Amino acid sequence: MDLFFLGTGAGMPAKLRNVTSIALKLLEERGAVWLFDVGEATQHQILHTSIKPRRIEKIFITHLHGDHIYGLPGLLSSRSFQGGETEVTVYGPKGIKEYIQVSLSLSQTYLKYPLSVIEISEGIIFEDEQFTVEARRLDHGIPSYGYRIVERDRPGTLLADKLKEAGVQPGPIFRKIKNGETVTLEDGRVIEPDKFLGPSQQGRIVTILGDTRYCENSRWLAQDADFLVHEATFAKGEEQLAFDYFHSTTRQAAEIAIQADCKRLCLTHISSRYDRQAWLELVGEAREVFPETDIAEDFKEFNIPSK
Amino acid sequence: MDLFFLGTGAGMPAKLRNVTSIALKLLEERGAVWLFDVGEATQHQILHTSIKPRRIEKIFITHLHGDHIYGLPGLLSSRSFQGGETEVTVYGPKGIKEYIQVSLSLSQTYLKYPLSVIEISEGIIFEDEQFTVEARRLDHGIPSYGYRIVERDRPGTLLADKLKEAGVQPGPIFRKIKNGETVTLEDGRVIEPDKFLGPSQQGRIVTILGDTRYCENSRWLAQDADFLVHEATFAKGEEQLAFDYFHSTTRQAAEIAIQADCKRLCLTHISSRYDRQAWLELVGEAREVFPETDIAEDFKEFNIPSK
Ligand SMILES: [Zn+2]
Ligand SMILES: [Zn+2]
Repeated sequence: MDLFFLGTGAGMPAKLRNVTSIALKLLEERGAVWLFDVGEATQHQILHTSIKPRRIEKIFITHLHGDHIYGLPGLLSSRSFQGGETEVTVYGPKGIKEYIQVSLSLSQTYLKYPLSVIEISEGIIFEDEQFTVEARRLDHGIPSYGYRIVERDRPGTLLADKLKEAGVQPGPIFRKIKNGETVTLEDGRVIEPDKFLGPSQQGRIVTILGDTRYCENSRWLAQDADFLVHEATFAKGEEQLAFDYFHSTTRQAAEIAIQADCKRLCLTHISSRYDRQAWLELVGEAREVFPETDIAEDFKEFNIPSK
Repeated sequence: MDLFFLGTGAGMPAKLRNVTSIALKLLEERGAVWLFDVGEATQHQILHTSIKPRRIEKIFITHLHGDHIYGLPGLLSSRSFQGGETEVTVYGPKGIKEYIQVSLSLSQTYLKYPLSVIEISEGIIFEDEQFTVEARRLDHGIPSYGYRIVERDRPGTLLADKLKEAGVQPGPIFRKIKNGETVTLEDGRVIEPDKFLGPSQQGRIVTILGDTRYCENSRWLAQDADFLVHEATFAKGEEQLAFDYFHSTTRQAAEIAIQADCKRLCLTHISSRYDRQAWLELVGEAREVFPETDIAEDFKEFNIPSK
């Protein structure tokens, strides 16, 4: 599981940072890539990476500002051109359906794969045997969502040899034990699954927030996250400016990370007013509060290791 | 007057060629830039040029395929962000209004400059004291237009010294002569304006065509053009493929140029199937028919000198 930043700027593209898009690479987990926001030229950024558009399975849009969605019609259309055939699901606030539908139909773009577009509200928006994704509203003037991606805990591997030593023969019983059930054998012995399973693997939690002021729902979404992506459009000290423009400062992002007991924080959505030198200061401000902070850059990748 | 190619590829962005956009730089003529098509990431390409978005005065869309319009909402919105205050007029086929309106309104983008969007049909779509722009339908499956930009001839400069030598005193008479009127002096002498004006400057003709098959209207639009931009999605010999996909070959573009008595031809909308080596072959094929042919590349500029 890796987070790959495709675009990390705010408002409009600049030479050093494209507008927002983040790829959650779940290649080992499910052979898939999930995108969070698709600013203009996200597909151009992807051209310079190893990401295969046909692997894109889900796209989560945080909010409908242009710097987060204007790359979506082009990406969807090129994925079809490039032979993508598997379904794509787009999740986003109300309006995302009309935006996609109008853009594709006026340009007479016919996708060769099934596309579902789901207009979300707060709550669990996706769930399968591997992941749960939950959305909550943030504070950004227009509806903006944060996403909490929770990987399910995985039961430990079955210690088959140990079972055989205990005289248990392979069969349906093995599956029951693997699934964590307590089993009573014909001879009356009780098999506790814990003793015959390796250590269970705790799932990871990744929280990716849309543009937002410092707010309570960010904390909720980030609780115990292994990796938190939080916007930091402004430097510490610019809290009033951040408030007026519905954004956050470096310091506020770090406050969320420490209060929510996160493992790591990555700042993104960096204004082009800050140059390379200033980036170091931005990350320094956050580290005063939350030491495990990094600042995103276009094409930077972060590994989120198994626990 | 210069033509600057911002994007010269076909269908989708590739590393070597972005999707279509062409800037007609009219800086000396009117301090303005006119864009023809705005594929995705045109604003990104502009970041690497000397073109100022606030100078963009008019945008002509040839057709609504995604590779020609998906950069439009972002460009319009960034122009506002960057302080552009003067009016922009977008010309394009039916549907362009809805596309712009839906994209800007769903993303809650409010431009700080006046925007007019004009859905065109064939004929003269713009005219002022400097230029006339005429549109005609091409042959591309969906409505696709070609544009013929005609600069008005400019009368020669008044030879004031020669008039004074002839005993004509400065005053309203000078203006009449400058405007090409024949004037009878109080003493009965007749002043023929031709004798007191420098050589008149013939206006230039630039023809920029949207995606099209080889067609009669291309020839009409290109007649006597100083510069013709014609798509060449396919190589010579691929005429059947070109026909099936509503595109042209290098050879067909050159045929139009020679039949229409153009001065220069530039091939664009080059498929990413062709690499740098193949580009030379493509241009060679066209030169067999029309020697004054070039092939467009992203960031290539062509000067169109005064006559
Ligand atoms: Zn934003
Ligand atoms: Zn095209």
